[in-house]
Amino acid sequence: MYYIGIDLGGTNIAVAVVDEKGKMLYKKNTPTLAERHYSEIISDMARLCKEVVKGIDKDLSDIKSIGIGSPGNIDSQKGLFIYANNFNFKNVSFRDEFKKFFDIPVFIDNDANCAALGESVSGACKGYKNSVMLTLGTGIGGGIIIDGKIYSGSFSCGGEIGHMVIERCGRECSCGRYGCFESYCSTSALTKRLKEAVMEDEDSEMFKYVKGEIEKINTKILFAFYRKGDYLATDIVEEYAEYLAEGITNVINIFQPEAVVIGGGISAQGNTLLRPIIKHVKRDVYGGVLKTEILPAVLGNDAGIIGAAMLGKDEVLF
Amino acid sequence: MYYIGIDLGGTNIAVAVVDEKGKMLYKKNTPTLAERHYSEIISDMARLCKEVVKGIDKDLSDIKSIGIGSPGNIDSQKGLFIYANNFNFKNVSFRDEFKKFFDIPVFIDNDANCAALGESVSGACKGYKNSVMLTLGTGIGGGIIIDGKIYSGSFSCGGEIGHMVIERCGRECSCGRYGCFESYCSTSALTKRLKEAVMEDEDSEMFKYVKGEIEKINTKILFAFYRKGDYLATDIVEEYAEYLAEGITNVINIFQPEAVVIGGGISAQGNTLLRPIIKHVKRDVYGGVLKTEILPAVLGNDAGIIGAAMLGKDEVLF
Repeated sequence: MYYIGIDLGGTNIAVAVVDEKGKMLYKKNTPTLAERHYSEIISDMARLCKEVVKGIDKDLSDIKSIGIGSPGNIDSQKGLFIYANNFNFKNVSFRDEFKKFFDIPVFIDNDANCAALGESVSGACKGYKNSVMLTLGTGIGGGIIIDGKIYSGSFSCGGEIGHMVIERCGRECSCGRYGCFESYCSTSALTKRLKEAVMEDEDSEMFKYVKGEIEKINTKILFAFYRKGDYLATDIVEEYAEYLAEGITNVINIFQPEAVVIGGGISAQGNTLLRPIIKHVKRDVYGGVLKTEILPAVLGNDAGIIGAAMLGKDEVLF
Repeated sequence: MYYIGIDLGGTNIAVAVVDEKGKMLYKKNTPTLAERHYSEIISDMARLCKEVVKGIDKDLSDIKSIGIGSPGNIDSQKGLFIYANNFNFKNVSFRDEFKKFFDIPVFIDNDANCAALGESVSGACKGYKNSVMLTLGTGIGGGIIIDGKIYSGSFSCGGEIGHMVIERCGRECSCGRYGCFESYCSTSALTKRLKEAVMEDEDSEMFKYVKGEIEKINTKILFAFYRKGDYLATDIVEEYAEYLAEGITNVINIFQPEAVVIGGGISAQGNTLLRPIIKHVKRDVYGGVLKTEILPAVLGNDAGIIGAAMLGKDEVLF
């Protein structure tokens, strides 16, 4: 049997057929045009589902389930999209809407959860029972895998590891609290901190590199200068690694999983980022022995689609 | 069938027969005399097991399993007691040692985990799938129940919620980190803070009440004065409630369980303690809607014995 995974993003919809081992076989994309009515978006998703199945010379009867990964608040138990700031609609039952197109079980979950499941089934955590994925981007998406399945709490909206306060009364977070993990360790938070630091230091090599055009600075430039031993880049990366290690140590003390996986574009920095983090976590972890691996994600953008496809794999189908 | 639960404490061993609904039927105690060789302690535990079974006019063949709740580091998968600072022994296989006395499956887990399981089976969280218990005492014991079972991570030592940093670079914690939840919210931390505050304020009613004998001050006195509206008690309880709410909000954002249960002697303060906490959590919880209940524990010291007894209930017995 095969599975369809859909990554519903704010700018792009990606749909793929995935085999039962979590291997992606064929993928197609279309722009989301997120301002549209939900029925148009779902109609596009359904069209792509049919196309990808045709693309591997199979039939819809070969598909066991369809899974959707979506940003925002999702009630996975009810198959309900509740709210995401990228979209114009609220409280849409994707499960019911998809029934207009297919007689195939449909699952939906938060995209961070799907990415964690994807990395768990066929990515960095393959073979591990318990893992936690932190996707660093505009925010920090948390995905908790327990016993090979997504854990999202009793009301479908748990896993908000980015909104764990690590510095009481610290930086203001978009959620209204002060000092959340996300407000220090999202890529956006790092970029903001970087821009401020470079703007304040006109003698720095990074300031010269972008010729004072601060909006051109980004984390790739930061890590390139860090690798060269630049003092300002070193300060910023080390401070960032300390905060990230603080949050990751919390996660390990609480979950003691086999692995914590770091996703998002910044995970491409691999050991350059992970080495200083692991150093701090080893120093701080409860009991003094770090048994949990800290790994970069390996599936990139496909983690979410693969995980979405796998949502229905071990479910008792209705 | 019946179950035996053992609470192995630093000063006292309590053993009880528990029915399959988690109701305690008969209990006996003996002093631990913790400096003894482990074989003597285990021999006493075994003797009490026989006595409690006799006490309900049953036979050892009516006992499905024996469960032990112990402080310290436990490898529940291997039935191994690794280390606790209260005892003179290390790395003892309680599972193997008990086989010398009984041909009954033996389970062992951390006492905070057992308390959480007890409250989950027949206490404050009865009927709930997911709950988190925080036992406030010398430290903060964390017990995570997912799908009705203890979650203690991939290496048996997870659930260390007390060692989640909530104030980076804050108070030094016994674990070596700075700013752990436990270093602000254990009963010991509260008592320390209380003593300092009363010592510094000789005009306060609490100072006068203990006639300046600071060692006599305790959290019961604190809450009694708080109920009367005393200014210093109000300051201290409100500060404590804010820190406790910070940690509990983190737990809810991560786990979104049906309930967070507060255990330990201080939970006897009930709503006096919970009301200010719930106020803060409602303000801070991610998404703005608090669905998780925050409850006082109801089983008191028996939670650990009942939970220990229930360790073997749903296990596939070996």
